[in-house]
Amino acid sequence: MSEVYASIDLGGTNIHAALARADGSILAEKKEPTRSHEGPQAVIARMIQMMRELVEQSRHAPAALGIGVPGLVDVATGKTRFLPNLPTQWRNVSVGEQMETALGFPVRLLNDARTATLGEMVFGHGKAVSDLVFFTLGTGVGGGVVLDGRLRLGPLNAAGELGHQTVDPHGLPCSCGNQGCLETVASGPALAAEGVRLLLSGNAPRLHELCGGDLSRVTAATVGQAAREGDAMVRRAIERMGTWIGIAAANIVSALHPGLIVLGGGVAQLGELLIEPVKRTMHERVGMFPTDDVQVLTSQLGDRAGLLGGIALAARGAEFIPQLQPLKSYS
Amino acid sequence: MSEVYASIDLGGTNIHAALARADGSILAEKKEPTRSHEGPQAVIARMIQMMRELVEQSRHAPAALGIGVPGLVDVATGKTRFLPNLPTQWRNVSVGEQMETALGFPVRLLNDARTATLGEMVFGHGKAVSDLVFFTLGTGVGGGVVLDGRLRLGPLNAAGELGHQTVDPHGLPCSCGNQGCLETVASGPALAAEGVRLLLSGNAPRLHELCGGDLSRVTAATVGQAAREGDAMVRRAIERMGTWIGIAAANIVSALHPGLIVLGGGVAQLGELLIEPVKRTMHERVGMFPTDDVQVLTSQLGDRAGLLGGIALAARGAEFIPQLQPLKSYS
Repeated sequence: MSEVYASIDLGGTNIHAALARADGSILAEKKEPTRSHEGPQAVIARMIQMMRELVEQSRHAPAALGIGVPGLVDVATGKTRFLPNLPTQWRNVSVGEQMETALGFPVRLLNDARTATLGEMVFGHGKAVSDLVFFTLGTGVGGGVVLDGRLRLGPLNAAGELGHQTVDPHGLPCSCGNQGCLETVASGPALAAEGVRLLLSGNAPRLHELCGGDLSRVTAATVGQAAREGDAMVRRAIERMGTWIGIAAANIVSALHPGLIVLGGGVAQLGELLIEPVKRTMHERVGMFPTDDVQVLTSQLGDRAGLLGGIALAARGAEFIPQLQPLKSYS
Repeated sequence: MSEVYASIDLGGTNIHAALARADGSILAEKKEPTRSHEGPQAVIARMIQMMRELVEQSRHAPAALGIGVPGLVDVATGKTRFLPNLPTQWRNVSVGEQMETALGFPVRLLNDARTATLGEMVFGHGKAVSDLVFFTLGTGVGGGVVLDGRLRLGPLNAAGELGHQTVDPHGLPCSCGNQGCLETVASGPALAAEGVRLLLSGNAPRLHELCGGDLSRVTAATVGQAAREGDAMVRRAIERMGTWIGIAAANIVSALHPGLIVLGGGVAQLGELLIEPVKRTMHERVGMFPTDDVQVLTSQLGDRAGLLGGIALAARGAEFIPQLQPLKSYS
């Protein structure tokens, strides 16, 4: 019996693929540019080719493949619905069926943030619990909600968009059409923009040094370093970002009372600087019941949550997603 | 086989009790003042006495009793935890066990807003669906969340506090300790206060007439009538309230994508005046997926949602609350 599974994390920039055992230990991996401008068929062919190379290289035939996709997918048919960061030809592409036919093993698709949520659930802090709320803080802000051991997907497999809660009703315009979404104040670009503002206004001397005045080097990583190394205003910017995330977390806790909230994605690597104000705000803003039992943690899987999520989806997806239960193949 | 069930809606002011068939048709009912200052034992004795009178009057022995309680309860033990509107002696009172012993049939306790949610699910708009988000808009704002046919309660049976989402981060102080909660801008008192402001500032001439200048007559009902009969500023106040509720609803839809949102409680009886801006705001503020399939409705049960919720809890509670499944009696 094969206990090897395959994963692909399909991003706007890179395709990251791996084979791993059911316990999450990676046997082989590969990363290539997505080149999404070449269109879906070229990208699908590239993913198939990468899989074949990994199988050949590791001499393991995977039992199934899980793919995290940047957008909305129909989990029951394995088709893409809408991928905002990829060209529009990606609407209604039967990625699952095409790849199954080519590869000869089952293929499962899921939104990338929800895939990362499954990764954290199966291989990270979620291992011992049945409820988990996951925020992916990156270029965008996504999420996933697991309640009583089930990933909440809703009728369009689109639920879990925690980055598009309104946290500031009169706030900034969001790419989704709304204004004041968490994403407008808690994404990587939002933090970089605030870093740029502080740098240009002379309020971030350490950040200025670290970046040599080059604004393209103002990232969550350099902003975090500047805060730790003395830039008080940069530190306050991170704290403010944490309070926004804390408001979104508090709203979810008041509504659903999950026992565990995990922050993932590149921005979460700010660590304690970010987590501390998130925790404080969450505890302060849930007034209706005690929240001592609600943990707020940084992802145990770091930047591998998505990749390991694909393994979790392939190996144990049906446990968390009842729609996958009866699924044998798409055709 | 008895198909008659009993219900009590325990409020800070009144106890409302009923017997009904499993289809929700009421056989007999009774209302008496709570007189909570007399303490829990007197109130429990009153509830037992009311039940006995209803049973005698209708000549039906109920199979079980469901009680909606204004605060937090432990559903597995039938004890009260914290009832903010009743005196503090109500902490950890074994209401379920005491009433079972006296009455001889099973007794189930649940928070009143969650009880109303079950009522709507079993006897109202929720009959044909498996997901329902219910807002109770009254003196306070409460709620209930049913996903995939399960009432979400969480580890302290306290989840569902939809009135305590932060909708305005710099907003008014809330009795729960937070600020800017939905309850501060969408409760009966919040609407009455805005009506009073408009009346006193000369911006609500029709409301002034309707109330004869008596501020104690400024209620959701008179405010709604004034809006319908020409007070433009009063109408705008209701619309503004609807947009706040719409923001809270949009946040829940982005996170969970339920197919149905129901507004209950006295304030919901404003009807279309309130529902229309709630709908518009919800659709406008969910940008990540289409919401054409998400319905927003006024409770089908009106002011009987709580009372019929008790019947739903007694008759079918275990379907929605797995913790009630193994429960035979508390002792």
